[in-house]
Formats: sequence, structure tokens, C-alpha cells
Amino acid sequence: MTTPLKPLTLWGGVGGPNPSKVSIILTELSLAFESQYLGFDKLKTPEYLKLNPNGRLPTLVDPNNGDFTIWESGAIIEYVIAKYDKNHLLSYEVGSDLDFQCKQWLHFQVSGQGPYYGQAYWFANFHPEKLPSAIERYVKEVKRVSGVLDSHLKDREYLVGDKCTYADLAFISWQTGIKAVTAEIYDEEKEFPHLSAWLKRITSREATSRVLEQKKALEATFFAKK
Amino acid sequence: MTTPLKPLTLWGGVGGPNPSKVSIILTELSLAFESQYLGFDKLKTPEYLKLNPNGRLPTLVDPNNGDFTIWESGAIIEYVIAKYDKNHLLSYEVGSDLDFQCKQWLHFQVSGQGPYYGQAYWFANFHPEKLPSAIERYVKEVKRVSGVLDSHLKDREYLVGDKCTYADLAFISWQTGIKAVTAEIYDEEKEFPHLSAWLKRITSREATSRVLEQKKALEATFFAKK
Repeated sequence: MTTPLKPLTLWGGVGGPNPSKVSIILTELSLAFESQYLGFDKLKTPEYLKLNPNGRLPTLVDPNNGDFTIWESGAIIEYVIAKYDKNHLLSYEVGSDLDFQCKQWLHFQVSGQGPYYGQAYWFANFHPEKLPSAIERYVKEVKRVSGVLDSHLKDREYLVGDKCTYADLAFISWQTGIKAVTAEIYDEEKEFPHLSAWLKRITSREATSRVLEQKKALEATFFAKK
Repeated sequence: MTTPLKPLTLWGGVGGPNPSKVSIILTELSLAFESQYLGFDKLKTPEYLKLNPNGRLPTLVDPNNGDFTIWESGAIIEYVIAKYDKNHLLSYEVGSDLDFQCKQWLHFQVSGQGPYYGQAYWFANFHPEKLPSAIERYVKEVKRVSGVLDSHLKDREYLVGDKCTYADLAFISWQTGIKAVTAEIYDEEKEFPHLSAWLKRITSREATSRVLEQKKALEATFFAKK
């Protein structure tokens, strides 16, 4: 008999693209976790920097492993998969080619999707001056990355092998979130039909859709406060 | 007796920050590899897209594993460490806390250092118009990331545990390369003394310094041709 797991603590919870990415994977694995939220103004406090010297969200604390603390969404996902997906619900045998292919797409997500989609979002919404050529640069990159995914998905249902893995799930938050910027500029469904079908396939999964609903509700509260 | 390894093929070789990052780690592990170079105009050809649908460098091909092909520098590093660092010269026991901490810093490098340093470099050198507020944004981020590294290195010699790992090595190409942009703006050695000492420690390693020399020589040829 195994000891029941204590719930993990996820700083950032379902808020924002990077924490919600982790929430989706925890929820898909039926892992209990508690969300801790922190305003932007609290990210650089000494208390939080002790957990995460980078002062960003998410950070995961695992009471089942001596409160081991890990930050960077990509690394958190690798940790959670290694520790808690021993039955390979969302992954493949450790050390197999498929296992490394999942890591490859995860690294593409964290380095090639997240930062550039984030810049598109920034220059479209928050930059102190309007810089059309900067917006153009990043919207172009969103389209390029979407095109890479679309081509790869032309003749397959999921990014790696024949099932939905953490690699697919990692892309969802940013790919759905960036529509706030791109919807007025191009029609994703027309331009990228395979990507679009894949998104529908994944966002209609019970666990994933539950997290996306929570994220939407949280964002509504957040924007309502402003 | 083990069969001697066939040399790996590394597309991108020692050219540019992301391929050279992998070269450093291969060289530190004394792994033989052949560099393949490809002009920017060849990255989107059908031949190369078959190896790497993202059309970027680096890509690794491993003839010791049925020509298994993997792209994304971070994923290549994870592959190389898993397959060829069984004695943990640059890593820690698989599944240990230190192992996950290495992954955490690697993910910070690929998602938090590379893309933003790249944007600083882009807006300082290549963007079709001068956008001071965009340059400022990314130079500020270079300083912030440098500050995170500097604070963490205040009371330790390496990022994780008590030895140089792939996590340290992964940061070197971008951290040394970005000086081309920042040297005129601030004095890294004064602002970030711990980071600066760590860089000296690592860049004076025999294997790493050899790759950095090759990189410099290649870049000199490249810019001479222009």
C-alpha cells in the first residue's frame, strides 16, 4: 500500500499562460494541488525570491519530497512527469526516442512559443509606445510557429506518437491565449486547419477544459478589479 | 568491450549561440562530432525541414542510435547528457534533486536568457528601424537575468551543487556573446562581480575555451565575407 500523496503547492495556480500550463498537466494526472496567488508587486519580495530567485511564476513545492522547490514551467513539467507519471499516461518510456521527442517539443514550447507570443502580447497591449514594426515582428513569429505546428500535425493527431502527451498540453495556454492579439489580424482556423483541429481535440479533454474554464473565470475577476 | 562511438553530426557546429552551446557540451564530454554548416537561406529548404521542421539551428543526428534526429538546443543537451554522460561528469544522478535543479537552470537558459538576449541583439543590430524603447526593454532584461545569476552565484562557484554542470555551460555562449551589445552600456564586471568570476572560471576550462576560440574564428571568417 502506498502512502497517499500530499497536495502539491503551485504558485501561480491557473493564472497566466505559464502557471496554467502546469495546472493542466497536474489536473490531467489527477494530482491534487493547492494554488497560491501572488500579485505582480510581490514577485520580488525576499520571501518569494527564496522560493524562486527569478521572481516569476510558476513555482512548485512538493511536500512529498521534503518540500523540494522547483521553478521554470518547463522544468516543473519535467519534474512532475518523472515523479508522477510512472504509468506514462502523458509520456513515453524514459530514454526512448519518443521520450526525447516529447522533450524536444517541450523545449520548442518554452523557448520558441512562450517568449515570442509573450512579446506579441506585450507590444500589442502594454508597451509604453505603439511600435507597429515590433508588433509586426512578433505577430509574424506567432504565425511562423503556428505554421510549424500546423505542418507537423498535417498527418498526425498529436505532436509525438499516437497519444496526447505533456508536449501537446504545454502549448495550449499560449496558443489559445494569443488569439486575443491575432484574432483581428488573421483567421487561425483558415490559415492553420490542422493546428486548429488539434487545439479543439485537446481543449475538449475533460481535465484540460476544466482548467481553462478556471483560468477564464480568474482572469474575468482580475480584469473586473482593474 | 564497447563498440567505439561514431561521431555525431551537429548542424550549426560552433556557429552562433545555440549551436555552440551544444558544441561546448559535446567537447566537454570528449564526444567526437562533425559540424555541418548551412546558410540562413538554406534553413527552410525541404531537405533541412525534414531534419528540423522548425528550420532553425542546431539539429543533432546520432548514428549510434539509428540516425535519431533531435532539434532544440535544450532538448539536444538533455539527450546528450542522458545518453552519453552516464558517469555524471557534467550532471547528477538521474531523478535526484540536483538533477532537477540542473533542468531548472537549463530551462531558465533556453526560455529566459536566450530569447531575450536574442531580442536585445536584434533590436540593437538588425531591426529595420531604430527603436530605443525596444532596445531599452531588452537590455534591461539582460541586466535582470544577469542579476539573477549574480545573486545566485554570490556564495557558490557553480549553479547547481559543487561542480560545473551542463546547466552552467548552457549559459556561456549567450552570456559572452551579448557583451557585443552591453559593453558600451554597462560594465558587467563591476555590476555583476559573481557572475563575472563564474564566467572566467568556466571560459578558462580547456574544452570550453577551445570551442569559444573556434566560434570566434568562424565568426571572423563570416563577417569578413560580408
